[in-house]
Amino acid sequence: METSVTTTGTIATIATLAAHEGETVTLRGWLYNLRASGKLLFPIFRDGTGTIQGIVPKAAVSEELFETLKNLTLESSVKVTGKVRADSRAPSGFELDVQGLEVVQRVADETPFPISLKEHGVDFLMEHRHLWVRTPRQSAILRVRATIMRAAAEYFDNNGFTRTDPPILTPNACEGTSELFEMDYFGDDKAYLTQSGQLYIEATALALGKVYSFGPTFRAEKSKTRRHLTEFWMVEPEMAFAELEDILQLAENYLSYIVAEVLKKHQADLKVIGRDVSKLETIKAPFPRISYDEAHAMLADAFAKGLIENEHKDGDDFGSPDETYISNQFDRPVMVHRYPAAFKAFYMQPDPQDPTKALCVDVLAPEGYGEIIGGSQRVDSYDLLKSRIEEHGLPLDAFQWYLDLRKYGSVPHGGFGMGIERVVAWICGLDHVRETIPFARTLNRIYP
Amino acid sequence: METSVTTTGTIATIATLAAHEGETVTLRGWLYNLRASGKLLFPIFRDGTGTIQGIVPKAAVSEELFETLKNLTLESSVKVTGKVRADSRAPSGFELDVQGLEVVQRVADETPFPISLKEHGVDFLMEHRHLWVRTPRQSAILRVRATIMRAAAEYFDNNGFTRTDPPILTPNACEGTSELFEMDYFGDDKAYLTQSGQLYIEATALALGKVYSFGPTFRAEKSKTRRHLTEFWMVEPEMAFAELEDILQLAENYLSYIVAEVLKKHQADLKVIGRDVSKLETIKAPFPRISYDEAHAMLADAFAKGLIENEHKDGDDFGSPDETYISNQFDRPVMVHRYPAAFKAFYMQPDPQDPTKALCVDVLAPEGYGEIIGGSQRVDSYDLLKSRIEEHGLPLDAFQWYLDLRKYGSVPHGGFGMGIERVVAWICGLDHVRETIPFARTLNRIYP
Ligand SMILES: [Mg+2]
Ligand SMILES: [Mg+2]
Repeated sequence: METSVTTTGTIATIATLAAHEGETVTLRGWLYNLRASGKLLFPIFRDGTGTIQGIVPKAAVSEELFETLKNLTLESSVKVTGKVRADSRAPSGFELDVQGLEVVQRVADETPFPISLKEHGVDFLMEHRHLWVRTPRQSAILRVRATIMRAAAEYFDNNGFTRTDPPILTPNACEGTSELFEMDYFGDDKAYLTQSGQLYIEATALALGKVYSFGPTFRAEKSKTRRHLTEFWMVEPEMAFAELEDILQLAENYLSYIVAEVLKKHQADLKVIGRDVSKLETIKAPFPRISYDEAHAMLADAFAKGLIENEHKDGDDFGSPDETYISNQFDRPVMVHRYPAAFKAFYMQPDPQDPTKALCVDVLAPEGYGEIIGGSQRVDSYDLLKSRIEEHGLPLDAFQWYLDLRKYGSVPHGGFGMGIERVVAWICGLDHVRETIPFARTLNRIYP
Repeated sequence: METSVTTTGTIATIATLAAHEGETVTLRGWLYNLRASGKLLFPIFRDGTGTIQGIVPKAAVSEELFETLKNLTLESSVKVTGKVRADSRAPSGFELDVQGLEVVQRVADETPFPISLKEHGVDFLMEHRHLWVRTPRQSAILRVRATIMRAAAEYFDNNGFTRTDPPILTPNACEGTSELFEMDYFGDDKAYLTQSGQLYIEATALALGKVYSFGPTFRAEKSKTRRHLTEFWMVEPEMAFAELEDILQLAENYLSYIVAEVLKKHQADLKVIGRDVSKLETIKAPFPRISYDEAHAMLADAFAKGLIENEHKDGDDFGSPDETYISNQFDRPVMVHRYPAAFKAFYMQPDPQDPTKALCVDVLAPEGYGEIIGGSQRVDSYDLLKSRIEEHGLPLDAFQWYLDLRKYGSVPHGGFGMGIERVVAWICGLDHVRETIPFARTLNRIYP
């Protein structure tokens, strides 16, 4: 405590000032901005729950308070006391008639807060991420992310799913890919960071019926795009006695719930972020469904009309511009199902109507945000799964336990994975996933 | 589908049969056990939500159904239809008068389910963990764990905390310990698996006020005890403008909430596990609080009376038998505060009353379960923190961003960390943490 100029009043937070209108409260936070206009000071305070403008007429306060505040450095920590006054022009709906101030720590004049209100380069901001998170836009994104994280678990908790946490350290790759972080595990063994908990929660689904996992996953991918992180959070439901139709219904209800929760709780934050909420208000189940073949036909038609640059080859996966074109035809996420089995994962159940297709779905977000959910029904036959593992050149012994699940009470089952950061990027309307997580890990950055 | 003998009825789960008394329902699950007594079969089915006994009198069903069921192998997957009848002697409160049966996959006679009802060795069970999780006790533990995971987040979500996820891949050790999993990070850099998100969420607490993190943490420790995993889940709250007293109050209210949630939702599971719930019913805030000095005096007294084997040396940390003796004096968790700073972490705030002590707390669980929470107020002075980092021989440049938090609006702040697996072990009354998580990672095991 460096300077104290009478601090009294109920401790309150900016988000809950509606309950204190007309009262004298004490807010604990930081000086976010300060404007002086003759004999009036207009400090803006932040406390993590929001920001509020204070009004300080020189005549209404002691000289000491006026001078202390007038010379206060940005991001200094304070306890500020004042009367809460409703003001319809204020973003929070309230202003504070400041009566007292305690400076907890004054930022030194020689080392001002490094992030000013002017523009900074991305590298500078990422290098100062521990401070950048304090700025209103970044704080708003993190609050929205927290609600997405909560809703992502809550939907399953409220619908009969049991959370089962798969291991992060795994003895081998889930899908046999090569982009794995590898480390020594006490000498002889190698361990790898998980890319998906799916295989493990197939085991717990056969124990508990409906389950989900929710944790970090990793990809040692040397790509530097606005959609890639090396460390990202994934939520994955898995259901016993479920077929593709159940998975589609779950996906559309799930995403609708998450968007509704954000809209319910974060109108102010979405405004700070600059998100067009009308684009989110349409996100309600049911979602459009098209097969891979229909999507291909849509692209062929668009190419014929000169609406897209590159021709999509039947049987190939969709590229990012293909996905953007497809998703732009709809005002809500589109569920593309039954892709060619050839380029999909070994564990996907073939479509009985056309075994060259997999019973799978990619959910493409609107506005070009790409795939946010990927799911499938899983192969439930022991013999088929065994031959798939062999065809893909995967080591049978490492997958023996996974094959066991088809030997002891196999059932139709399936689920999906949803990447949290892509969902945050889409819901907040962000250009780059690096702003979707407190401390992004990318090809070139593991600091701070 | 291998055999179908008329399956109709509303799809239901065993946990929700109370809503279907007297009705005909179809359950989807597995044959857990089967007893035959002359012309009566007593199959027990499980579906992940619970178990139920069926009654099948030979005279009441078709010969095909009777023979199919009589010869059915354990853990075969089935859809079973029957009438729900209340029976106060049944553990679930209901029995099923079986009318129809569809066998989804019959476990082959040559490869019976490997986990029988007799005792197996721990290695065998851990090697078959993907199947072991299906047994009633393990399923019950996982359901309780899921509720603990949920309550652990929910309490904070409902009390103004924002979840902020710290990175798992970090450039250096949080507390400068050596038990780190290390890996290459794209060539030049090394990355380490996090042991705690605390330092990172101190940054987000100064942005958002009250925050928490919830994720896996890692320790490459070569110890093989019943309390150690190499991978475990940790939940960590951090509060700006908080002192030790706030941390103590949060800890006792938090643990009380979690225990109450388990008691509310899992009476049947706790019975299956064999937990003495009377030991949990006393877990209500406020918790007893004793200082390190008082705990030492308690141990000195016990040693003098011959109640403990080894003398506790004043100034030393407590050993496991010391913690057990201390916790046994109380019927709820005991909060031991103000340990000697000498053996505590560098970031702990000294007690102004006695700077050789730290403003910290260890919460010791009852019944010898040891430390379940460790927390502290953090050093908020730049100069003191800097000299602490230097004294501990930690690299200043790696901690520069952490020091920045004391330069730009420092405030009294603090929080704690709670290990989920130890809490699950304590609440379920388990001997070993390996049963507290779906796929435990220990010194000798990363499979399956
Ligand atoms: Mg795709
Ligand atoms: Mg200790």
